[in-house]
Amino acid sequence: MSDKPVLRIGLIGTGFMGKAHVFGFASAQKVFDLPYRLELHTVADITPEAATRAAHEFGFAHSTADWRELISNPEIDLIDITAPNALHKEMALAAIAAGKHVYCEKPLAPLAADAREMADAAAAKGVKTQVGFNYLCNPMLRLAREMIAAGELGEIRGYRGLHAEDYMADASGPYTFRHDPAGGGALADIGSHALATAEFLLGPISEVMGDCVTLIGERPDGKGGTRKVSVDDVGRAFLRFANGAQGSIEGNWIATGRKMQHDFEVYGTRGALAFTQERFNELHFYATDDAPGRRGFRRIEASPDHPPYGRFCVAPGHQLGFNDLKAIEIEGYTRAIAGEIPEPFGFVAGLRIQRLVETIQKSSAARQWLPVPA
Amino acid sequence: MSDKPVLRIGLIGTGFMGKAHVFGFASAQKVFDLPYRLELHTVADITPEAATRAAHEFGFAHSTADWRELISNPEIDLIDITAPNALHKEMALAAIAAGKHVYCEKPLAPLAADAREMADAAAAKGVKTQVGFNYLCNPMLRLAREMIAAGELGEIRGYRGLHAEDYMADASGPYTFRHDPAGGGALADIGSHALATAEFLLGPISEVMGDCVTLIGERPDGKGGTRKVSVDDVGRAFLRFANGAQGSIEGNWIATGRKMQHDFEVYGTRGALAFTQERFNELHFYATDDAPGRRGFRRIEASPDHPPYGRFCVAPGHQLGFNDLKAIEIEGYTRAIAGEIPEPFGFVAGLRIQRLVETIQKSSAARQWLPVPA
Amino acid sequence: MSDKPVLRIGLIGTGFMGKAHVFGFASAQKVFDLPYRLELHTVADITPEAATRAAHEFGFAHSTADWRELISNPEIDLIDITAPNALHKEMALAAIAAGKHVYCEKPLAPLAADAREMADAAAAKGVKTQVGFNYLCNPMLRLAREMIAAGELGEIRGYRGLHAEDYMADASGPYTFRHDPAGGGALADIGSHALATAEFLLGPISEVMGDCVTLIGERPDGKGGTRKVSVDDVGRAFLRFANGAQGSIEGNWIATGRKMQHDFEVYGTRGALAFTQERFNELHFYATDDAPGRRGFRRIEASPDHPPYGRFCVAPGHQLGFNDLKAIEIEGYTRAIAGEIPEPFGFVAGLRIQRLVETIQKSSAARQWLPVPA
Amino acid sequence: MSDKPVLRIGLIGTGFMGKAHVFGFASAQKVFDLPYRLELHTVADITPEAATRAAHEFGFAHSTADWRELISNPEIDLIDITAPNALHKEMALAAIAAGKHVYCEKPLAPLAADAREMADAAAAKGVKTQVGFNYLCNPMLRLAREMIAAGELGEIRGYRGLHAEDYMADASGPYTFRHDPAGGGALADIGSHALATAEFLLGPISEVMGDCVTLIGERPDGKGGTRKVSVDDVGRAFLRFANGAQGSIEGNWIATGRKMQHDFEVYGTRGALAFTQERFNELHFYATDDAPGRRGFRRIEASPDHPPYGRFCVAPGHQLGFNDLKAIEIEGYTRAIAGEIPEPFGFVAGLRIQRLVETIQKSSAARQWLPVPA
Repeated sequence: MSDKPVLRIGLIGTGFMGKAHVFGFASAQKVFDLPYRLELHTVADITPEAATRAAHEFGFAHSTADWRELISNPEIDLIDITAPNALHKEMALAAIAAGKHVYCEKPLAPLAADAREMADAAAAKGVKTQVGFNYLCNPMLRLAREMIAAGELGEIRGYRGLHAEDYMADASGPYTFRHDPAGGGALADIGSHALATAEFLLGPISEVMGDCVTLIGERPDGKGGTRKVSVDDVGRAFLRFANGAQGSIEGNWIATGRKMQHDFEVYGTRGALAFTQERFNELHFYATDDAPGRRGFRRIEASPDHPPYGRFCVAPGHQLGFNDLKAIEIEGYTRAIAGEIPEPFGFVAGLRIQRLVETIQKSSAARQWLPVPA
Repeated sequence: MSDKPVLRIGLIGTGFMGKAHVFGFASAQKVFDLPYRLELHTVADITPEAATRAAHEFGFAHSTADWRELISNPEIDLIDITAPNALHKEMALAAIAAGKHVYCEKPLAPLAADAREMADAAAAKGVKTQVGFNYLCNPMLRLAREMIAAGELGEIRGYRGLHAEDYMADASGPYTFRHDPAGGGALADIGSHALATAEFLLGPISEVMGDCVTLIGERPDGKGGTRKVSVDDVGRAFLRFANGAQGSIEGNWIATGRKMQHDFEVYGTRGALAFTQERFNELHFYATDDAPGRRGFRRIEASPDHPPYGRFCVAPGHQLGFNDLKAIEIEGYTRAIAGEIPEPFGFVAGLRIQRLVETIQKSSAARQWLPVPA
Repeated sequence: MSDKPVLRIGLIGTGFMGKAHVFGFASAQKVFDLPYRLELHTVADITPEAATRAAHEFGFAHSTADWRELISNPEIDLIDITAPNALHKEMALAAIAAGKHVYCEKPLAPLAADAREMADAAAAKGVKTQVGFNYLCNPMLRLAREMIAAGELGEIRGYRGLHAEDYMADASGPYTFRHDPAGGGALADIGSHALATAEFLLGPISEVMGDCVTLIGERPDGKGGTRKVSVDDVGRAFLRFANGAQGSIEGNWIATGRKMQHDFEVYGTRGALAFTQERFNELHFYATDDAPGRRGFRRIEASPDHPPYGRFCVAPGHQLGFNDLKAIEIEGYTRAIAGEIPEPFGFVAGLRIQRLVETIQKSSAARQWLPVPA
Repeated sequence: MSDKPVLRIGLIGTGFMGKAHVFGFASAQKVFDLPYRLELHTVADITPEAATRAAHEFGFAHSTADWRELISNPEIDLIDITAPNALHKEMALAAIAAGKHVYCEKPLAPLAADAREMADAAAAKGVKTQVGFNYLCNPMLRLAREMIAAGELGEIRGYRGLHAEDYMADASGPYTFRHDPAGGGALADIGSHALATAEFLLGPISEVMGDCVTLIGERPDGKGGTRKVSVDDVGRAFLRFANGAQGSIEGNWIATGRKMQHDFEVYGTRGALAFTQERFNELHFYATDDAPGRRGFRRIEASPDHPPYGRFCVAPGHQLGFNDLKAIEIEGYTRAIAGEIPEPFGFVAGLRIQRLVETIQKSSAARQWLPVPA
């Protein structure tokens, strides 16, 4: 059918993100001219039944209840990890040791030290990695980065970033792994997206002052009792960027009413950008060069002028969806595996985010500014 | 791999909509639990080379430069027509005669008389049909229809519909088949979407007064000369609905700056809805039952509360894209083929739209109100 | 205190619009350098008590229960009519006969024939007149007109206008003078604003096709019974403009949820404008000259770049309110009285609106297109 | 004309805010039933000519180039100070010593110590004071406060406030008194508004961590050279409120493209509010009590349901302007002078804002959290 080389995928985990990955694999190879033909080889879930069901549902040829079988199977080229965060490290290290490429959902690992070990292992082994920060794959974010890099905003002075949702706003919601002191909390869970976008657009953050706050101090433990929660419900930071700009970010999972407030504003000497993920097919651009009396934020709608939008639709304004961003992520990753481009957001980048998160957490605990380790 | 029956697809046409269908087939069977396993059997394009390329790109097993081969191939169950409008009738009738299900892009045919012939043939033969009006597949439109049907807006009094884009705004753009007097024009091309949405929400339109206007009277013929254009650049109508409501629609392809202004407002005695396709993951709802001083249009964001959004994503606010609507269309169609549900938007529905379009055009030419034939 | 000539004002009526005029007089002479010092001389209301109260409240020196006293008082220069519509004609003609300038709230008169008589009388007597269409005084509408006139949108092709509110949406609301067959209805009451804006921006409308619909056929008569209503709840029209453009307007007073949807879109060959009175300190501008990939509707915020905004506030973005528009109207009118500029919107203009309204109503009744009498 | 007692006003300063005050006096006494008749007695400006011109333009009976004449004039009841910030203290203390009520534009004084002296003096003398924080007079902010106080949002957890403009974004703009190390900077100038709104809505802030950043280090001195700037262009803070809520604010005068971004979001356990001064006649309200699938931020438009909107206009959605907020401020202040209500925002409140500003500045300099002195 196709003379392309085959990339055989072993997927671990079949929840929210597992599904999103499968959707992404399916559409990526229709939408893009990938360097590989993707083959959904084996899916692993906790029980044989769940795994078999997922294989049928998603179109994997094989299934297993033992993720280690994926690692040891020489037919599989790429291990895709969408299992709970606490397992990322063990799975990834095993996969890397077996010489497999590793695609890991965010966070790379709950702790930066673990993420570092993973990144180092991948580098030593020479496999290609990807961490799932797919908001960055939005053509409008790429446009924003391009405009900033090209100087369309002039010199960048200020930044305000945000990722706020309300999925933890209900205090009667049970304690989950996301409340785990090791790696849990709003800053780690979604503030990390705000940090990723900030560095994607403006480059490295050099110094932070963190403020991590717990508002809901205990949650039902699912056994009729309650369990103390120590992680942050809101995690924010003042930021200094290496390029001289400054700003702030906030991660907030108790922002009642907000479902996807991944927003930013960038202020430069010649222009500004405003964005909200709530309307992520739009980028708002203010140019001081516009004629007096005619200035204003322009609502730029995603169109074929903003690659790779045109791969999905040849007409402007039709809009991409969340799952399409995953397809774009996959395209980049497969091209990196093929050696065509550098890793778009590999383990080193994932480690970087963990480091930012931890530095902010430490800063908050110490109540003082801290430099971000390189 | 799967024990589901197979539905073998033959696709004619590989342009904008051909691609969208392929994307839709790919994601529909990942996202939904379809009654069939879809198999991309054969693709037909104008030349053998184009067809072969498309087969490779899209993942069809076979290709051909002769669409009749698809019809005569007993292995193919469903003929998917995304070829130019003028060919729809011939292709569809041939497919129906061969006992195949037919999935046809809009418009069903340039003329209602032809559409009638097609609908009759399909009914006589008992095959299942679908016309591509995928804006209707948006969960937020389904929500709107459900709210109206449930009486959440009270008795419906008024409607304002619109579909405006600017892809024909440039007068130097060449004459195309869309300018063909038989079936061309803005009303037929996109006003048809506004009509489909109007009846989807409020039920049958009983009487119309049309106003079809040509603003760009000639266009380059592609051979260095110009060609006269007689079809409408703007087609609008006053409407009377069978349920007693009244309103208007407009189709406009020279609406400078607008890329996807498929909008509507519905006014009832107890509430109102406002929608724009520019932000199609939102529905705005005003309820007179809200407390005084607290009333206002609520921006409802698409979420798992609005099926089938949850099939794509378990979290609210993440948003569907245009291609996802196609997957929803395909899900409905395959379920209709399996006999689980009535045809969501079959040839009879497609004929209905053509009839509305033609009645409005005739009304405009006659400069008088006309009843819409049943 | 001031060496300016004095303009002595006699106000008839102290309701919604009467108050708005008084607020306007007060702020106009602070905000602008008017050619006159305005003196609130006498106010007339139905009873002596009401008139006295109003005089105290608003700061008039005198009061009366007989509006004819204002006319016969030689000290009064300007008669300001905010009484019910049915009285406009008698009051205005008396004032004109007495040689006074006349400021009359809209509509000039319920019937165009009456409006014509009033306009003719004013012209014959040489007094200066003003009809209250203060939405036109918005700096952003003036900007829109200026941009259109300067060709910033290229050649104008299309227009969509609207004035929708919901103050008559409740069917249990009583029958009022606004339901009077002579001059009542949504088209006359607020559709007239949509018409005024359309001609303000694009120039004369030459031909119309009307559609006036009654949805609420009877209303409480305030005496325990009901009274039949024959005027339109929704009045809309297709439009042809003398400049070759075409479009539509709608007036709607049962648009549930809408409080001030005085909106328009203008499409030209080089650009477009979009406006809503719901956010009337903004004008949205799309320019095809913007760079590819950077185009979008710009949200221009009212600022000192948009006269006379700067008279109210030297800083951009602070926003004018509805009453400020009245002050702008008054400034223009007093300058016209002083002979500095032509009447901004005198009785001839008011007559024009009545004529448009009546032509649309007649067209609707006849169910056919009608030319608009010059 | 009126039997109300007279309040004679002496105004110092005739710039932006001086004008706004005069507009406010004029409309306040038309719009409201004030306890006093306001008399514009004397205006003071720097030169006799400027003062005379202002008297004519604004309608003051007298003028002077010596502000001390206002203080010593026993006919004057109220001294209104809109002079440069550095003079506020001297003027106010003199006025208080003379037993006059004092209306002072913000900031009350560049330094909190001075503000304290002023507040103490006013208290000792028993005169009534007002500081101009008129954003707080917006009916939609009052609605927000009322909703919060009534528990409509449940328990308040989080806050995000902002006041961003771009009037200092141009680095070639000259050094002004706003850059003065004593009292200057973005935090003091407009961040103060964000702080005022935060406490207006949620009550006292108990602890802050500040971040004040200078981006434009020098500016033209107006004499051909440059002058070093040490005040902040952006001043932000993490906040802890006494009621247990937490949040952040930012003041930013180099936010390219932003003219009036005085925004906030408040998150409670049962609902949320979102507001932007860019559209200040709207308040967005999310209620978790709304039915599932029907939840969303409601765009509540200002209406007579939101006092004192109805004093300005009896119909909803017509909108107040910036100057109307000043009229509301004046109404409150005159009622406080009459003893009807407590001072809405007197010198004690003004001092409080200065104290917050200074604490944030100190915290920033010390790079550590600081409690806010009571």
